[in-house]
Amino acid sequence: MIPEIAAHRSVRKYKPDSIPEAVLREVLEAGARASNTGNMQLYSMVVTRSAALREKLSPLHFAQPMVRQAPALITFCADVNRFSLWCRLRGAEPAYDNFLWFVNAMTDAVLASQNVALEAEAHGLGICYLGTAVYNAAAIAEVLRLPQGVIPVAAMCLGYPDGQAPMTDRLPLEAVVHWEQYEDYTPGRLEALWAEKEGSEQTRQLLEANDLPNLARIFTDKRYPKGDNLAFSRAYFEALQRQGFFNQ
Amino acid sequence: MIPEIAAHRSVRKYKPDSIPEAVLREVLEAGARASNTGNMQLYSMVVTRSAALREKLSPLHFAQPMVRQAPALITFCADVNRFSLWCRLRGAEPAYDNFLWFVNAMTDAVLASQNVALEAEAHGLGICYLGTAVYNAAAIAEVLRLPQGVIPVAAMCLGYPDGQAPMTDRLPLEAVVHWEQYEDYTPGRLEALWAEKEGSEQTRQLLEANDLPNLARIFTDKRYPKGDNLAFSRAYFEALQRQGFFNQ
Repeated sequence: MIPEIAAHRSVRKYKPDSIPEAVLREVLEAGARASNTGNMQLYSMVVTRSAALREKLSPLHFAQPMVRQAPALITFCADVNRFSLWCRLRGAEPAYDNFLWFVNAMTDAVLASQNVALEAEAHGLGICYLGTAVYNAAAIAEVLRLPQGVIPVAAMCLGYPDGQAPMTDRLPLEAVVHWEQYEDYTPGRLEALWAEKEGSEQTRQLLEANDLPNLARIFTDKRYPKGDNLAFSRAYFEALQRQGFFNQ
Repeated sequence: MIPEIAAHRSVRKYKPDSIPEAVLREVLEAGARASNTGNMQLYSMVVTRSAALREKLSPLHFAQPMVRQAPALITFCADVNRFSLWCRLRGAEPAYDNFLWFVNAMTDAVLASQNVALEAEAHGLGICYLGTAVYNAAAIAEVLRLPQGVIPVAAMCLGYPDGQAPMTDRLPLEAVVHWEQYEDYTPGRLEALWAEKEGSEQTRQLLEANDLPNLARIFTDKRYPKGDNLAFSRAYFEALQRQGFFNQ
């Protein structure tokens, strides 16, 4: 397996060392090599290195220490603005301010981000995705001065790892692969797929620390409670409309 | 740069040779190594090799010949179904049937797809993304028997390339990178960024063949006309609601 794919892990502790320009540039170039919609490159990578700006973004990423610790934060945005401006400059009428093109542009942005992640790792850097880019999209858009037609879809800390981050387990491959058509999950199959995770020492400790009866409840009660899910869900859809991705 | 990233191209002609099981498995394993939301792995990869099923899917991918030609078609789906079923089995109440979790699950699916693409290329395979997975999501969901909580977000042909596919150009890196904050595009900057593309021999031929005055019009008038954009946009949003990703 490609070594960077096989060894990939999320890094949550960083050294303060900055990233040499040439390395950062090659990492970003790797992002730009990814497949994208019609070769329109409907994404932007906003690279924030300023400590003051990262400080401002920090609460929007739930004050996760790595946002201030890692020397660079990249916000990957779905971006139909650049292409639309170019069309208008040429007297062509763009029609990318709708949901289809949000999905296309988001795909472009996320594909680019994965190349960035792997190429960063090839240079000895570590990364961590921040789901909070979506939770607080409107406020992040304001700090980063995103115009209409641009919205954050992913963010990533980037820097030199401080220590060795652990690799996380995955469900068995059969959990995520379907042959020919989708084969829905029976209770017996779910039991088998989650057996190792549920039986691990890590899970035992987690349940004890949280006083909860099973691992599923850790997700539903602690990590991603329903009220938060609904509030962030509505907020992101509003941000999508406000940024001009839902004129249909 | 990681060789597979540097040499990446879309392959549109395939040999009929099938993919050895061990290779396909390693390619899919690479997908499962990608970062994902809370290690919940909210995606499924539906691998369709059956010629009869690919025949059925072919018109939904606008009858692009490669769908029938390449020995495998992978449909990457945002999937909150598996995790939600497991939660319910444990008496935990999942709340992932909303827009936030579509975005999270779509991110997971797209990240996995990029690892699959690169790992495939490391084994001498070629790939091509099919944007049509989104255009005809509802019909594809029916053919692949996707249940509630599962929706196609990307698809990919996979097989051994027949001949050498060309690499496509990209805008200069400065087009897609912003330092610190987003810097909106002035007409002068747009002119400079698109100068090479617009001045190419390929563009000249394209304009002549289509009798259009500039490259932007190729996109707005020919490739992605407004009427199609709006129709597919509404259709995908309806599919999203029908598949249970918009209860909020």
